[in-house]
Amino acid sequence: MPGLGGVTRGRVLYGGDYNPEQWPEEVWHEDVRLMRDAGVNSVTLGVFSWSKLEPEPGAREFGWLDRLMDLLHENGIGVVLATPTSAPPPWMGRLHPDTLPVTEDGRTEWWGGRQHFSHSSATYRRYAAAITEDLAARYGSHPALTMWHINNEYCTVDYGDEAAAAFRRWLRERYGSLEALNTAWGTAFWSQGYDTWDGILPPRLPHYLRNPTQVLDFRRFTSDMLLECYVAERDIVRRHTPHLPVTTNFMPLWFGQDAWRWAEEEDVVSVDLYPDPRDPLGAQTGALVQDMTRSQARGPWMLMEQAAGPVNWRGVNHPKPRGLNRLWSLQAVARGADAICYFQWRQSRQGAEKFHSGMVSHAGEQGRTYQEVKQLGADLARLGPHVTGRHDTAGVAVLHDWHAWWAGAQDGRLSTRVDHADVLRAWHRALWQAHLTTDFAHPEHDLSAYRLVVVPQLYAMTDAAIENLLAYVHGGGTLVCGFLTGVADEDDRVRPGGMDARLRELFGIRTLHEWWPLDAEETVACEGYCGTLWSEELEADGTAAETVPYRGGELDGLPAVLRKDRAWYVSTLPEPEALRELLARIAEGAGVRPVLDGLPDQVEAVRRGELLFLLNHGREPVTVDVPGTHHDLLAETAVTDRVTLGRYGVAVLRR
Amino acid sequence: MPGLGGVTRGRVLYGGDYNPEQWPEEVWHEDVRLMRDAGVNSVTLGVFSWSKLEPEPGAREFGWLDRLMDLLHENGIGVVLATPTSAPPPWMGRLHPDTLPVTEDGRTEWWGGRQHFSHSSATYRRYAAAITEDLAARYGSHPALTMWHINNEYCTVDYGDEAAAAFRRWLRERYGSLEALNTAWGTAFWSQGYDTWDGILPPRLPHYLRNPTQVLDFRRFTSDMLLECYVAERDIVRRHTPHLPVTTNFMPLWFGQDAWRWAEEEDVVSVDLYPDPRDPLGAQTGALVQDMTRSQARGPWMLMEQAAGPVNWRGVNHPKPRGLNRLWSLQAVARGADAICYFQWRQSRQGAEKFHSGMVSHAGEQGRTYQEVKQLGADLARLGPHVTGRHDTAGVAVLHDWHAWWAGAQDGRLSTRVDHADVLRAWHRALWQAHLTTDFAHPEHDLSAYRLVVVPQLYAMTDAAIENLLAYVHGGGTLVCGFLTGVADEDDRVRPGGMDARLRELFGIRTLHEWWPLDAEETVACEGYCGTLWSEELEADGTAAETVPYRGGELDGLPAVLRKDRAWYVSTLPEPEALRELLARIAEGAGVRPVLDGLPDQVEAVRRGELLFLLNHGREPVTVDVPGTHHDLLAETAVTDRVTLGRYGVAVLRR
Amino acid sequence: MPGLGGVTRGRVLYGGDYNPEQWPEEVWHEDVRLMRDAGVNSVTLGVFSWSKLEPEPGAREFGWLDRLMDLLHENGIGVVLATPTSAPPPWMGRLHPDTLPVTEDGRTEWWGGRQHFSHSSATYRRYAAAITEDLAARYGSHPALTMWHINNEYCTVDYGDEAAAAFRRWLRERYGSLEALNTAWGTAFWSQGYDTWDGILPPRLPHYLRNPTQVLDFRRFTSDMLLECYVAERDIVRRHTPHLPVTTNFMPLWFGQDAWRWAEEEDVVSVDLYPDPRDPLGAQTGALVQDMTRSQARGPWMLMEQAAGPVNWRGVNHPKPRGLNRLWSLQAVARGADAICYFQWRQSRQGAEKFHSGMVSHAGEQGRTYQEVKQLGADLARLGPHVTGRHDTAGVAVLHDWHAWWAGAQDGRLSTRVDHADVLRAWHRALWQAHLTTDFAHPEHDLSAYRLVVVPQLYAMTDAAIENLLAYVHGGGTLVCGFLTGVADEDDRVRPGGMDARLRELFGIRTLHEWWPLDAEETVACEGYCGTLWSEELEADGTAAETVPYRGGELDGLPAVLRKDRAWYVSTLPEPEALRELLARIAEGAGVRPVLDGLPDQVEAVRRGELLFLLNHGREPVTVDVPGTHHDLLAETAVTDRVTLGRYGVAVLRR
Repeated sequence: MPGLGGVTRGRVLYGGDYNPEQWPEEVWHEDVRLMRDAGVNSVTLGVFSWSKLEPEPGAREFGWLDRLMDLLHENGIGVVLATPTSAPPPWMGRLHPDTLPVTEDGRTEWWGGRQHFSHSSATYRRYAAAITEDLAARYGSHPALTMWHINNEYCTVDYGDEAAAAFRRWLRERYGSLEALNTAWGTAFWSQGYDTWDGILPPRLPHYLRNPTQVLDFRRFTSDMLLECYVAERDIVRRHTPHLPVTTNFMPLWFGQDAWRWAEEEDVVSVDLYPDPRDPLGAQTGALVQDMTRSQARGPWMLMEQAAGPVNWRGVNHPKPRGLNRLWSLQAVARGADAICYFQWRQSRQGAEKFHSGMVSHAGEQGRTYQEVKQLGADLARLGPHVTGRHDTAGVAVLHDWHAWWAGAQDGRLSTRVDHADVLRAWHRALWQAHLTTDFAHPEHDLSAYRLVVVPQLYAMTDAAIENLLAYVHGGGTLVCGFLTGVADEDDRVRPGGMDARLRELFGIRTLHEWWPLDAEETVACEGYCGTLWSEELEADGTAAETVPYRGGELDGLPAVLRKDRAWYVSTLPEPEALRELLARIAEGAGVRPVLDGLPDQVEAVRRGELLFLLNHGREPVTVDVPGTHHDLLAETAVTDRVTLGRYGVAVLRR
Repeated sequence: MPGLGGVTRGRVLYGGDYNPEQWPEEVWHEDVRLMRDAGVNSVTLGVFSWSKLEPEPGAREFGWLDRLMDLLHENGIGVVLATPTSAPPPWMGRLHPDTLPVTEDGRTEWWGGRQHFSHSSATYRRYAAAITEDLAARYGSHPALTMWHINNEYCTVDYGDEAAAAFRRWLRERYGSLEALNTAWGTAFWSQGYDTWDGILPPRLPHYLRNPTQVLDFRRFTSDMLLECYVAERDIVRRHTPHLPVTTNFMPLWFGQDAWRWAEEEDVVSVDLYPDPRDPLGAQTGALVQDMTRSQARGPWMLMEQAAGPVNWRGVNHPKPRGLNRLWSLQAVARGADAICYFQWRQSRQGAEKFHSGMVSHAGEQGRTYQEVKQLGADLARLGPHVTGRHDTAGVAVLHDWHAWWAGAQDGRLSTRVDHADVLRAWHRALWQAHLTTDFAHPEHDLSAYRLVVVPQLYAMTDAAIENLLAYVHGGGTLVCGFLTGVADEDDRVRPGGMDARLRELFGIRTLHEWWPLDAEETVACEGYCGTLWSEELEADGTAAETVPYRGGELDGLPAVLRKDRAWYVSTLPEPEALRELLARIAEGAGVRPVLDGLPDQVEAVRRGELLFLLNHGREPVTVDVPGTHHDLLAETAVTDRVTLGRYGVAVLRR
Repeated sequence: MPGLGGVTRGRVLYGGDYNPEQWPEEVWHEDVRLMRDAGVNSVTLGVFSWSKLEPEPGAREFGWLDRLMDLLHENGIGVVLATPTSAPPPWMGRLHPDTLPVTEDGRTEWWGGRQHFSHSSATYRRYAAAITEDLAARYGSHPALTMWHINNEYCTVDYGDEAAAAFRRWLRERYGSLEALNTAWGTAFWSQGYDTWDGILPPRLPHYLRNPTQVLDFRRFTSDMLLECYVAERDIVRRHTPHLPVTTNFMPLWFGQDAWRWAEEEDVVSVDLYPDPRDPLGAQTGALVQDMTRSQARGPWMLMEQAAGPVNWRGVNHPKPRGLNRLWSLQAVARGADAICYFQWRQSRQGAEKFHSGMVSHAGEQGRTYQEVKQLGADLARLGPHVTGRHDTAGVAVLHDWHAWWAGAQDGRLSTRVDHADVLRAWHRALWQAHLTTDFAHPEHDLSAYRLVVVPQLYAMTDAAIENLLAYVHGGGTLVCGFLTGVADEDDRVRPGGMDARLRELFGIRTLHEWWPLDAEETVACEGYCGTLWSEELEADGTAAETVPYRGGELDGLPAVLRKDRAWYVSTLPEPEALRELLARIAEGAGVRPVLDGLPDQVEAVRRGELLFLLNHGREPVTVDVPGTHHDLLAETAVTDRVTLGRYGVAVLRR
């Protein structure tokens, strides 16, 4: 499998999406000059070029792309070539309305935006394969080509008739028999027994609540169908260029894709990342996505898109203050990225994203944005030889599974306030603030390399996953589980007792009497701190070595937290500070230490290979104790025992 | 007409919906054992069994139901058998898309949930009649069968083409001529004159405001069409079992059904009741629905569904704290229920309601929920001989009419903050907090039995209703009317003067100059208290015996409240405490006394027959003075002069 | 071009929409008596009479209208006759579903409300032309007829297939070639290149953001198509009655119509105006709309609709306190109106607007509303001879352009908190509170008559508009520009640098680095005051004569406000008090003075011809210094040096 190493060759890839079809060709030459000045060494071409390449059905216009590839090559800039299949030309919808997606309530998504394609449309797939084939044939041996980028941010959903037929095929494959499907879906409830495969629909607008397993399977199906689209294009380009890696760019922590499964089909994992510059936890969002992507990649990964300034899809879109773009880019390098790329090179003057920033903003070469981009290019050039290709494994693994998320995110659950991703973020935040670097892992992964495994919430678990956790603990690992874990099986069938009996035994729980979800603004007192979001009426079985009781209210005296041997169960969401302290204490017990002792709160420390990255997320300068003498690769100075980081400052230290 | 007495035979019916098709048959035996332990004597079968009974069109699978009926009979548990027609099997929608309802903006409601049937579909009705016929034929003489339960929570609406045709037929029936319809609907406004019946539609998505009388008639039509569905099935089962009572379960204070009209077609009135355990006024919600249902039943009634723990359709679904299920169940008995039933017996492990509690929760036999269910079963057994069959009439009647609600709940009214049901709740709350037991009545009912009649709001009234009120007052009754009463006639035509002239004369009002709705958070000062929600610029005619003026603001000095003889008009919504005091004072003047004097706020007292129920809605114990010596049927102790009720405690006293 | 003068003939027109088809004919005679008592001299007939005039396709029923016209004429009341084309009869949708509009997501807007017609429907237009023709032929020479009122509040939008075809024709007209369209729309982005005209759609529901220029053109198209409908009917009536003026009533500051363009096609400009009586800035809303309408009319105009009491389309609809109807009506006269009319004469008893007030309310003749209407009639009679026909031009012009509004009001912009109309209101409010009377002007109008030109926000500007501003300043004018001005060209293409280079040069700006939109509740400190909503990272070029810097935060020290010669740029929205002071200072520098010195805040002063209107918007009496001796036309008293205005009081002074 071709990897990223053949592309990076000791350099951090630096660049972004380049959509020069928006500009007259004289601007291309200006672009290349500015790219070179900024150290840009890689651009992604063609993401939205389908109507330019195929202006009418079957036509091919490659001349402009030929000239562009040549120009980039002449200037030493590599090309990640995209298949343009995320934005079909207008003629496709016009001639083939069957390619348009349909919403759950029967409304068509028309052309005029982007991603108006049905993953299930045979017509769409045929056109997509043809343009992919021709692109691969024409540019497979072009010297500028370094890798392939398939489609863009796969995310569409379709409830239409062709999707319904595909859903039935997928279900037939999964279940084999209608009886098995009826059992898995629990169709005995609400008179939903299917007598023919033809009777099954996507979970379209109902009168009242949908069947949750139907919804769950439809989410699985959607992820799988999009993956089929990806694989079909990947196989075409791979046939032409078996030596070149292939990727598609994920959206971060995106609900619609089982990224564990997808990552297996990619040569290189890449992700788009757009934290809000105003979000006080923006850096943690970055860390989480970077940890997640590194774990999926099991090696260096690509930051495929970020914004040099503001995005344009929030209610209020804030620019990045001076220094923040550099800080967050270097954070990604610290956490394993070998490519720092943007959407997009030059800010559009027209179209739906003209207020989304570019590396070259509307202000042009003299604008602050480009000037900072240039500075970052120099920084990355300094770091490249020391970081590329390096991959590190953390001491802590956080478990995450899309199927558990999908199963839990249903109508008719006990609390709409409980959001899998929010809970995941809260637990990762506690670890991040405790300066504990974390990997993510799938519940069925081999966990034996980790000293500590953290399960923020796995509402649904397979038997294999449960056995995996048991084996991990029995093998000497330390496990911490949050609430609503092990409630359901993979069909979203509630396990007897409301929580798997093996897990209850693991934590020392006899009976889970009732779940007590909390209202907004409501907290529940535990000994020493408060819990939020959730609580539980648990009866311990007397085997726990340690418990923290609830205090006051209906749950007074009942266990909020139980520990039995090395297995912890936390039945509420402790306030941030309390969760941080709890996890720091458990980590210490498990032999996991922070990256550096005595770090100020605003400083993030990450090790990558031999390098120690220190990142100041504050606007005030700060001094960090770093015993011994190091070389700061960015400042190109020696540092002894302490280093001062300016506002948004970064030091990359090497012994 | 067969009544509930033949079913209860001295016992309170205790049980719930039983959907054993979700479970292997070995669980059935476990169920029956647990039912017997808990004193369960009645279960409802088949509510959602259509696809099990008729897995493909025309097929019949009764074997499982035969075994179940036999098993229950052998164990002395009676069966309320449901027609399964609220949840058609998937094949119906697939083969007959004409059975699916359509929303006001043309979207189909698909199968995959429940209640996806059009009340107007001839196809649906044909299938529903056939399965009902066959069920009645097969089980009509089964010894377990005690009564019939038709469909479930009728509530669907349909704007599709078959419904449009039915609407036209209904209108033709109502109006006879297009001219009469055009007059009633006021189609001279906005150029809506109809020249053919075919031109009339349900009030589908318009460009701007709909014709309000069209909307009103569509609501009447919808209620009537659902009632037709009920009656058709009722007549079938009645033909087979003329000796057995028939019911369908209402949703409490449900907007879509004229329950006065429906109750006339039922042998037994039953209702579902799900107050939020967190609602500080949950007990009042219960009291209101119970009073309403008792008044519709004019005798004992059935609490057909409640939850032993949490429901699963709120944003956050709270369980019932220890004791609350018992308290609220006994409240229903106090207010006339002869059946305490649940949805459902055993909590589902799959499907859309698996987080809705059951009498046997996920925690099973050892769970707190079942343990409390068992305790309640014993309590009900103690009460049964003393309460069943007893019906009491209150001294106060509160008037309520669905047509008034429907007419008033329109776009284009003066204040969207005014909600008929909220106003009704506010007035009932004041009476409830004043410990005054109330009936409900329809505005055209004979009111002569009541000393006090309260009209929270009857926006639209027929002439007959107005004359009924006048006759009531002239006959010596005391009447209190809230604002927005008598504004419109039954066609939603505003009466000259903005309020019926007869009513104005009754209260001593010369001119209603303007309505002054109040904003959120806005109050209006009256002498002695504040009003909320609404106020009016009234000019008195000088005949009122008593007035309370507005103070300050634009209405300074104008009458807020008028009394002329025994007729009161209240032109604002007094704050809760003020409304309670006002009504207590008026009631006293009318000779209506609280159930018991000196009751603490948190204690509800209700008399049923010879019994005095005392219910502590607080979490703290409380002592209640009850002069004389009584026997407490629950504690099985004697009580002299005072009784102490624990948290959520109940005493049922008999002299 | 026939003007309003031939209709007013020295009287202020007074009256309103009259829809007597709702009432039996005996009420008509009562109406006429009450009209005469109140001084009503003009009514609008037929706005919603289509189904009455044409009860079935092609039929004509004019008898009732004949009688009505005669009756009015006999009583000296003139008739503004409306074409009834805003509310097609039910038979039109039934027989011709192609006349019904379709929403962006494909939902039909059905009959049953009003305005359910597609502007693009050939069928609709054919029927509309026919009824217009016949009305004009029949009543063109009727002595009661004074002018024509076409349709009513044109505002519909249609995304259906016939509209799509019309949109293509319109685009073809605008662009000539597909290449020009592709360039203007920037279709190179997101693969939207069109290869045939047939591929173009209205901006229907997309998967993700729409093409903004497509949306912009669709807004232009919609305004133009509605205008075509208007012109077609106007031309018909004009052919019959070339001597009579024609109008259609605008909704105030309505997003959907380019009122500058429309006004050119009207003989008389008229507007509907419904400020919320509870809005503390309701009087400013009135002033703004009146200034705007006067500027569009370039002469006296008609207040075609207002409410004598409450409307019925807000969440809470408040009545007008005593005196407010008179105050706001006289404000309109002060600001140039020669007609004070209402929707509607007699409040409906039925239909969607029965809670919208009328001049005769539900309370009838004795009701406060009618009594005040009568008083106002007398006031207007006193003023008529002194005001009618008089038009004044202000010293300040505020620029407004619908195309700039449309271009800026898109998804995907930097801040959804920035609303063109809100910004316009904020700047007009500052001028209004500074007692500076303003005109409005289009950016390409001749501005040389004004001493001060104010641009609250013109996001998109043509080159001609930019040159117009430059010429204005170079010609000696004073210009103040708010933020987000000159950002885009008429195709919504961002101008290089993010703001037109000529404008940047005009204000002394070298580089606009980044826009910094502000969150809700967020402010930015400038020297001396705070800004809200927006801020900018600007680099001055050193030529500005004066700057106000930002203080603190990321923009510390950068210019918030720049002045270069007589051109001011304001990069934030100063708090109201600060903006008022800034504009008052700039106006003074430009030689523009308030109407009167030393005016209390609550008093508005406006000059019309030789008259000085003083309007007390407060509920407390207030004394105003007015040097010299005047005659108060309303009180019919002499006034020396000062005048006291009661609550909501008005004085109209003449030397």
